[in-house]
Order: sequence, then structure tokens, then C-alpha cells
Amino acid sequence: MAKAPKASPVSSTTCVRLRSEFVMLGTRQGVHYNKAQVMSLSTQPYKGARDFYPEDKRVQKYMFSVLRKVVESFGYQEYDAPIIEPLELYLAKTSEEIVAEQTFSFTDRGGRSITLRPEMTPSVSRMVAARRQELAYPLRLYSIPNLWRYERPQHGRLREHWQLNVDIFGVPSIAADHEVILIADSILQAFGAKRSFYEIRISSRALINWLMLEYLRLDFTQAAAFMRLIDRMAKISQKEFVTLADALLSPAQRETDVLQRLMALLKVKRLVELPLATQQHPAVAELAKLLQILRENGVNNAVFDLTLMRGFDYYTNIVFEIFDKHPDNNRSMFGGGRYDGLVAEFGVNPVPTVGFGMGDVTLQNFLTGHSLLPTLAPETDAIVILVGDVYEAAQKTLAVLRNEGLRIAVDSSGRKLDAQIKAAVKSGILYVIFLGEHELATQRFKLKDLRLGEEKELGLERLVSKLAARHRPASEL
Amino acid sequence: MAKAPKASPVSSTTCVRLRSEFVMLGTRQGVHYNKAQVMSLSTQPYKGARDFYPEDKRVQKYMFSVLRKVVESFGYQEYDAPIIEPLELYLAKTSEEIVAEQTFSFTDRGGRSITLRPEMTPSVSRMVAARRQELAYPLRLYSIPNLWRYERPQHGRLREHWQLNVDIFGVPSIAADHEVILIADSILQAFGAKRSFYEIRISSRALINWLMLEYLRLDFTQAAAFMRLIDRMAKISQKEFVTLADALLSPAQRETDVLQRLMALLKVKRLVELPLATQQHPAVAELAKLLQILRENGVNNAVFDLTLMRGFDYYTNIVFEIFDKHPDNNRSMFGGGRYDGLVAEFGVNPVPTVGFGMGDVTLQNFLTGHSLLPTLAPETDAIVILVGDVYEAAQKTLAVLRNEGLRIAVDSSGRKLDAQIKAAVKSGILYVIFLGEHELATQRFKLKDLRLGEEKELGLERLVSKLAARHRPASEL
Repeated sequence: MAKAPKASPVSSTTCVRLRSEFVMLGTRQGVHYNKAQVMSLSTQPYKGARDFYPEDKRVQKYMFSVLRKVVESFGYQEYDAPIIEPLELYLAKTSEEIVAEQTFSFTDRGGRSITLRPEMTPSVSRMVAARRQELAYPLRLYSIPNLWRYERPQHGRLREHWQLNVDIFGVPSIAADHEVILIADSILQAFGAKRSFYEIRISSRALINWLMLEYLRLDFTQAAAFMRLIDRMAKISQKEFVTLADALLSPAQRETDVLQRLMALLKVKRLVELPLATQQHPAVAELAKLLQILRENGVNNAVFDLTLMRGFDYYTNIVFEIFDKHPDNNRSMFGGGRYDGLVAEFGVNPVPTVGFGMGDVTLQNFLTGHSLLPTLAPETDAIVILVGDVYEAAQKTLAVLRNEGLRIAVDSSGRKLDAQIKAAVKSGILYVIFLGEHELATQRFKLKDLRLGEEKELGLERLVSKLAARHRPASEL
Repeated sequence: MAKAPKASPVSSTTCVRLRSEFVMLGTRQGVHYNKAQVMSLSTQPYKGARDFYPEDKRVQKYMFSVLRKVVESFGYQEYDAPIIEPLELYLAKTSEEIVAEQTFSFTDRGGRSITLRPEMTPSVSRMVAARRQELAYPLRLYSIPNLWRYERPQHGRLREHWQLNVDIFGVPSIAADHEVILIADSILQAFGAKRSFYEIRISSRALINWLMLEYLRLDFTQAAAFMRLIDRMAKISQKEFVTLADALLSPAQRETDVLQRLMALLKVKRLVELPLATQQHPAVAELAKLLQILRENGVNNAVFDLTLMRGFDYYTNIVFEIFDKHPDNNRSMFGGGRYDGLVAEFGVNPVPTVGFGMGDVTLQNFLTGHSLLPTLAPETDAIVILVGDVYEAAQKTLAVLRNEGLRIAVDSSGRKLDAQIKAAVKSGILYVIFLGEHELATQRFKLKDLRLGEEKELGLERLVSKLAARHRPASEL
């Protein structure tokens, strides 16, 4: 047993702790942690994931506040679910590639196979199924969950992101598809985007299925392979596409011009250009109606796009994607569609559902690319610089300012005035209030605008109204 | 290769997907998913974790909005970090018990040892260390992260919770300790709590260390064991405590009345009752000053409590806990303290730090126990019931209402009127607006208050002002 240390002069600066045990030390031991261990602790976040310093978090909060405002204006209510779900939830629903190669899947201490959710749709379907009878329809739900995928980080694709999920349950008609696409459009409008910045591409999984299986007479395996190939079309040359497509066909199919008919289909830009045999498919009338309602209400950048494939297996009819038209970032931003079968996978009656997901990284890239991100001031209105030893005396005045709704930091470091001013400038906070014995006695305050360098002496009321005026409302946080 | 199905009557109700492959089906196949697989998919959330349906999420949003408002009024700015951190981060810092038995720790596909964060303090210390030089001090940071611990779920302790984390960096004096305790108090005040509902218990780790090592002359191992025992004191009988305490002592220590002196210490209720030898310890003066400033500014429920031990190893001086005084829930709710050594563990110069964490489950139990949770209406102001086939015709009016800031759902189910009204009542939304051809033509709307059963006919402007008046501001969402 270690010998107890002898009594020594006391000090309050005891600031040591050790790793290996619950250890308390007197001052004499000093700071003697294990340097080797210390140096191995990285200050970097987990690969492909992000730290949000206040200036980053402000951007995210601004984006989320706009998202919440728009989706709530359409009557959607927020929900949430645990970031851990059983692996089975994704085995049944998510695309093969994601489950097999891209999930964060583990075994917990109780032997359960668990996964950090790669998407929210299975979770919300589970929740709706659990209360299938008690819930009122149309049911409108949204969430902004944190999602994880194990993939190689690249531009616009990290291992984690936050994703707005918007879903409407219980509406079988295209009113639901229309509403959800309108919300996607309204969100971009609310951020100040022009409709020339993006395009809304719409198709129908039911129509594509019919074209593949009935019109082109492909079998299931061929159809699946063709859909994957069409999904990659923009990334390969036309020649390569034709070669790969041809290789999927049987000799008999080659003789009946299947490839030529497919290529003709892929050139279709408008519903009326679809082959006559297709015109009677109900999805064609639905797509026409959908595009018409959108255009009549100002959404003039929605187009039919038969080449649109969505990665998830569960879509059943209308699917859509929003494409960024910025020349440097010409890509699919986000999308969604109808998935009428998912809730029923939990053993309850089916519920017609339409939804979409919109990731924060993609959104932020879009806003940055089109110069739509405003400059955001810190959440703090002013920092109080204490002139003299007045921390205690200043408490009542600080409380008054805060009770008036102001967000007031105070430099309680006890440093010299110029060191305090330097730190205030560095902090990015826009205003400084000087508080000394004189100001506390007279209740007149020196307010300095750090951008303009102007200084004014104000009474309490004018101080509050001046700062509250520029004060970003809490509603936007 | 499977034979391609023959052409069949087209239908848009194709709503089938299979698990095993990216498969598209024509209607004829019907709904034929694997029933056995379906039934095994549970609708329950992961054990010890919570689904938040809108009525649950509303409560959380209300709590978080109050938390944000209060901490921002003190000049704190929000940050965030990934929920995954390297395991090493906790090996170095968190209590042994938590790391060894209670973390969700795994190996990722790249062979890295990772952990779902059980607490936020190591992450924020890492972030501050990474930008030690660039950041402006005092640095005030807050976050409301989701945290995970693998433990047996019980009242007030789940496997996951959300926890407000408030930390101030760069202030070595008790001004920082005072501010952080004042924030904890201000939060409970903002929720409407009376100071008789809770007690703020304050002690000093530096003082306790000195008492254990210098005053009682215990060695490190004994001191650690005594501190763990004192932490459990309220849960065991005095007799058991004495027996366990005595067993920790050496024969020589028994002869010098160490146990008697310890028991006398544990009876101390005020700083002045501490033994004379202790009075010169700087922590005593700091505790006295801290209690005085708090009391002078209305915080009259703060007390010195030498029996207060905090679980984490990293505290260096002042520690505090907030105790719920409700007779049915008499327990520690949350707490914090000073940890001046943590940032330096990343190989940079130390930064004095004070902070606390407050969990959402504990907070909600407190608010419920003291009847402080308000009744919260849904985020939706009204649901529009469509009279006749007017979905398309109603779009412009719906857009006007939403542009006026109203949150308007619409029953687009196409059901009969009474089915729509039934669903509206079930939804919990407080108002219904009836929209038919007549209303659209005259722009006068029937507004029904579902609680009172009253119906009024209003023009657009009055409709908006009536609904906006009851409208819970977005700032509280």
C-alpha cells in the first residue's frame, strides 16, 4: 500500500487526474500525466464525420430552422427514433449494397445485431405500424435525424449526415405526391433559390416496371440489371452503355429489336412521346396530372424523366429527384417517392405513403454554390467588458439585460482592458458593453460597435432596443 | 433464365417489393412477400431507447427551446460533434466503470475501435484542444447531444438520453463556477420551478482531496475507496457505512481515531463547522464567496455539502449537483464542476474549464413531478377539410394561408365529410377550416374550434389573425 503523503501547503489549483484509477492528488504531485498517452489522443473527429464549431453549427441551425418552418407550414409534425435499430430492419428494406457494405453494424453486449441507421424510412414505417390503428390519417411526419453509412468520404458524401425526412401516410392519390414535391420546391424557394437553379425530375416506378416487363418483355433479372445500368447512364459513354445493355439480352431479344426500343424510350422527354401502347398505363395520366398541378401553381421546373431511377427497392409508383443545375455541381441533390408497401412489412394492413429525404451536406453545397447562405452573426448579442473588479456588483445589471431577452456574455477573466477588447474582437461578437463602477451607478452604458468602431452612451432602455433590433430571433435558431 | 411474363392489363397499384433482390413486379404477382419474415420484424424501438411520436417530440422541443433560450442569454454558443468517437478518448477520461461495462464500443469495417459517446465532455475538450490558439476566451459552448450507455434500463436511466452540456473555458476564478451554477438555477427558474423544489449542493474536489490525504492522512487507494463509499452513503444504513469504512483502515489508523474524525466531517453542514486546520484551504474561501454571490442574487437554495462526490475522475475543484426535493423523487438530477486538466490531455497547454450536463429524462421527470409541463398543442394550426373535389382549386388559397405564417394541413384523402371530421378530431389539431367551391369563390371560410364546437365564418384576414394568435411561436419549437 502506497505511503500517505505528508501534509503540505494547501492550494486550490489541484488540477490533476490520472487515467488508470480513481485517483486524487495533492498539489505537490503537479501535472504529471503520461505524455506518451496524451500525444496519442487525436484532436480530429472520426473519419468522414464532422465537428461543428459554433460558426458551423450556426449554418446548420439556420438551415434546419428554414426546413422546420416550411414543413410545419404544410402541417407536418416532428418525430424521432433511436439512432440504433436492429439489423433486421434494414435486411428487409434497404438496398442490398447499403446493408452488405455500408452499414455500421455491430453486436451489442447482449448479443443483439444492431445498426446505426443509414436511413430513416424503415424507422418511421416501424413507428407507424406500431400505432397503425391509433394514428389519424392523413398522417404528416417529419424528422431531421443523424444517419450513418460506412463509405469512402467524398465531395457531398460523408459517413454521417443529417437528413430531413418528410412523409405523408394514408393518401393513395397523387394529392400526396403533389404535396411532397411542392414541399421540396417550397424549401428551396424559402432559401431564396430561383427555379432556374434546379430541376424537379419525375417518373413512375410502376410505369418503368411495366415498360421493362410488359413492353420490352424483359425478365426480372434483366429488368433489374437494366435499371441499374440506366441509373449509371450519365456516368458512362453512350457506346459503353449500348455495349453493356446489349450484353444483357438473349439472342431472341436481340432479334426483336429490344435494345433499339429501349434506346428510343430513353430519348423520350415528354409523356406524349411515349409509345402508344404505354399511354393507357394509369401512371401516365397521374404523371400528366401531377405535372399540370405543379405548373399551374408556379412550379415551372418540373419535368418528366424516364431515366430517373431511385436507389431504394421500396418505391412503388411516382418517384422524383431534385437536380442542381449549377454548372460546377450538376448532380442529383435529393429525392423521394411513393412506397405503399413498407408499413405492411410489420404485419399490419398497408398504408399508402409518399416521402423524401434531403441531406444537410448536399443542401449546404447547393446553397453555397448559388450564394444563398446569409452571413450569420453569433447567437450572442454583446459581450460585457468589466472595468475594474465589478463582477459581483454587475450581477443585477446583467440579470436585467438577460431578462429583457438579450444574449449577453461577460468577460470574467479578470484580464486587463486591452486583452479583453482583443478577445472580444476575436470572438466575432458584434457589440461590446463596458461596465464599471460609474456605469453601474448611473445605469448609462458605453456600447461599442466592433465592426464600425463607433461608441455610444445609452440608457438601459435604448441599449436593449438597439441590441434587440439586430438580434436574430430565437425562432431562427 | 426465368421466362418473361406475358403482357397483362396495366395497373398503377403495383406495390410489391422483395427482400432478396432488386426486383420489380407486374400487378399480376400481387402482394406475396414472405409472411414469416414480415412477422419477425418488431415494431418496438431498441431496448432502453425511445421512439418520439409527435406528442413526445413536442415535449422535448419545448424543453430544448427553454434550455437554448437560457444558455444563449448567458452568451453560450451551440456546437456539435459526431456521435462516434475513438474508444481511446474514453479510456483516458471517463470513469472506469463506464468504459469497461457501459459503453457501446465496437470495431468498424476499417478495424478502428469506436464508441457511441457516453458523455460529451471528452468531445468538447478534444474540439477546444484542436483550436486552442484560434479560439477566443472566455469561450462559452453548449450542445444537446444524444448519449449512449449500455446499462439496465430503470426509472430515469435509459440506454440513450439527450443531455444539455454547458461549458465555459478560460476563466480560472470562481466567476466561472458561479456563472455555471447560476445557469443551472436559471434553467429551472425558466421552467417555472420554485427554489423550494430543488437544492443546489456544492463542494470542492480539491478540498475533499486535501481532507482525505492531508487531514485524515489516508493513502490514495483508501481515499478513492472512501469517496466511493461516501457516494453510496445515502443508499446504505449508517451501521453498514461504519462497518465498511472501518474495514478500509489500518490498525494504526484505527488507533488515531481516523473513523471518528471522518464521521465528524460528514456531519458538517456549514463551512464554519469545518475543523480549524481546514479553514485556510483556499477552496473554503472560494466556496464561501460562491455561496455568498449566489445568495445575494436570489439563489437562496445553495448549500455546502461535503458528502457530494461526482462520478467522473476529471474534476479538480468546485463540484455541484442539483437535487430534486420532491418527496417521491428525492434524488440528484444533474451536476457538474471544474475540470482544469482535460483539454491539456491532448498535448496542449491546460485551459481552466467549468461545465455541467443535464439529461432530458431526468429533467422531464422533474417537470412532470412538480406539474411544470404545459399542455402543448400540435405544431399544426388547422386542418383544411375539402368539401367536394377541390384539391386542385384550393392550392392558391392554401398557399396564401401558409405564406401568412399559418401551419395548415389538408385532408387530401378524398373521403366523405364525416370521415374527414372524425380524423381531424382524432389528430388533436384544434381547428378545422372547411373549403369548398363556395368558400373558394367568396374567400369567406368556415372555421370550427374542435374543443368548443363553435363554428364561425371569417374573411381571410380575420382567419389568419385568429389562428396566428393561438399559434405557438416557432421560437418555442
